[in-house]
Amino acid sequence: MKLVECVPNVSEGRAESVMRRLVGAVETTTGLKLLDWSADRDHNRTVLTYVGEPEAVFTGTQALCREAFASIDMRNHQGAHPRLGAVDVIPFVPLRDVTGDETVALARRLGAWIGKQGVPVYYYADAATRPDRESLPEVRRGQYEGLAARIGTPEGEPDEGPREFNAKSGASIVGVRFPLVAFNVNLDTPDLSIAKRIAETIRHSTGGFRYVRAMGVALADKGQVQVSIDFLQYEKTPIHRVLETIRSEAARHGVAVAGCELIGLAPMAAFEETIAHYLQLHDFSVRQVLENRLLES
Amino acid sequence: MKLVECVPNVSEGRAESVMRRLVGAVETTTGLKLLDWSADRDHNRTVLTYVGEPEAVFTGTQALCREAFASIDMRNHQGAHPRLGAVDVIPFVPLRDVTGDETVALARRLGAWIGKQGVPVYYYADAATRPDRESLPEVRRGQYEGLAARIGTPEGEPDEGPREFNAKSGASIVGVRFPLVAFNVNLDTPDLSIAKRIAETIRHSTGGFRYVRAMGVALADKGQVQVSIDFLQYEKTPIHRVLETIRSEAARHGVAVAGCELIGLAPMAAFEETIAHYLQLHDFSVRQVLENRLLES
Repeated sequence: MKLVECVPNVSEGRAESVMRRLVGAVETTTGLKLLDWSADRDHNRTVLTYVGEPEAVFTGTQALCREAFASIDMRNHQGAHPRLGAVDVIPFVPLRDVTGDETVALARRLGAWIGKQGVPVYYYADAATRPDRESLPEVRRGQYEGLAARIGTPEGEPDEGPREFNAKSGASIVGVRFPLVAFNVNLDTPDLSIAKRIAETIRHSTGGFRYVRAMGVALADKGQVQVSIDFLQYEKTPIHRVLETIRSEAARHGVAVAGCELIGLAPMAAFEETIAHYLQLHDFSVRQVLENRLLES
Repeated sequence: MKLVECVPNVSEGRAESVMRRLVGAVETTTGLKLLDWSADRDHNRTVLTYVGEPEAVFTGTQALCREAFASIDMRNHQGAHPRLGAVDVIPFVPLRDVTGDETVALARRLGAWIGKQGVPVYYYADAATRPDRESLPEVRRGQYEGLAARIGTPEGEPDEGPREFNAKSGASIVGVRFPLVAFNVNLDTPDLSIAKRIAETIRHSTGGFRYVRAMGVALADKGQVQVSIDFLQYEKTPIHRVLETIRSEAARHGVAVAGCELIGLAPMAAFEETIAHYLQLHDFSVRQVLENRLLES
């Protein structure tokens, strides 16, 4: 069974009736499972997380966009979070039996459709058409308020839709990223410098693992410190390998790992290497997990 | 989503047309997933493995029994494997979100229905009504051929159905057991006595873990030996704990674990403790595995 996740960020986090319609658009789409949704009044923004087969995700996201474009007027929008339009960002995430390329094709198909609704679209991350659009903050620079001036310039030319400012809906940013696993390692010491040193050891930007972002954080209440990690591609940099490195580096300071936390959900594939490594299962595959068979078509 | 597995053993492993109808009875039942089926000519026996919600499993098993009772005549049956009837054994296995008691109720409901078809039924394992019926070989003692004489005695009195011999269909044995995980640990030594000693260390019958069966086996081709393990209740005796014991005991002989094998499928819950233990995830639950959310109703 092919599974794609979609995590759209919509610029409305206050009006109950609008949020209800946004959630309803997803919930009433056959074959979609809404895993989570949350609204933030200060950000004035709602984030939905749903999964399904690619076509169901496409249909549900269309329905969500229709509701958002009809109900939200960016001329009245204020909020703490940067945003470019009514449907601000639509990240697609390949979860099961689906390649990055297939997911990019899905994202571009949705982007073309949004363009036909009269809303300019920028592709970002793995769906970007230009290197300067890979970074989301870069695409969103200047925000909605700067869009009117920027859209006519070569730098601001949309990938889809009209090359003119849509005052009501702004623009949408559509892309593809890998599933991210958020994982925290708590160290049995109050010394923040140790967590920071270990974060430097494991993260890509300072010489560590290719698909790891990490930082050191103090946990004042617990008298502990934390290495807070994002696994950007857990198949290439698996959880257990980074954890073993942390254990080794921590031991050098006489510090033990007190415990770990998995934040939110992770696909089963994120644990395949953990199981194979510690149980020494040379031929293990998540296909041996019975529940996986039930998700096969 | 409640999930029950059923692994009926049917006394026909040669006639293609009958086996096709048995498999068809399961495959055409809405909501059932046939995971595996295999026939053995010497045993003259077919084993099917399917899963689904309890009602679907009930309906599919009824359909299977109807086919078997219509097509198989035990008066003509010969095979190497002990058997009592046309549908010899029906083990139900609680897999997800379903208690042992609920599964026993399901087994007894099916047993009552089989009895009404004129076929005597014995309950075994966790569905047994008497201590002397907990063991399957005990219930099957004397086989089909001994049934006519045995069925009129107090010891042979069926739990359901007529107290008289059904020459065509024999009797059926219906029960509930926990999901079994078959796991082999290969040791980097040709010394079988080490595998046997370690098997004694970990198995229940000789002082080891409560829900472990184990034996030592030679792997002549590999020049290794193997501790072959059945986990009878992996939630109470988890895989990682037994493997760590084996590692420790093997090290005492200067022997390393060369690798392990998981035979067939295992439910995700069998790995919950593995993940929680090695990743030190104190609050981990398989509910954090995304695919599990998709199986929730």
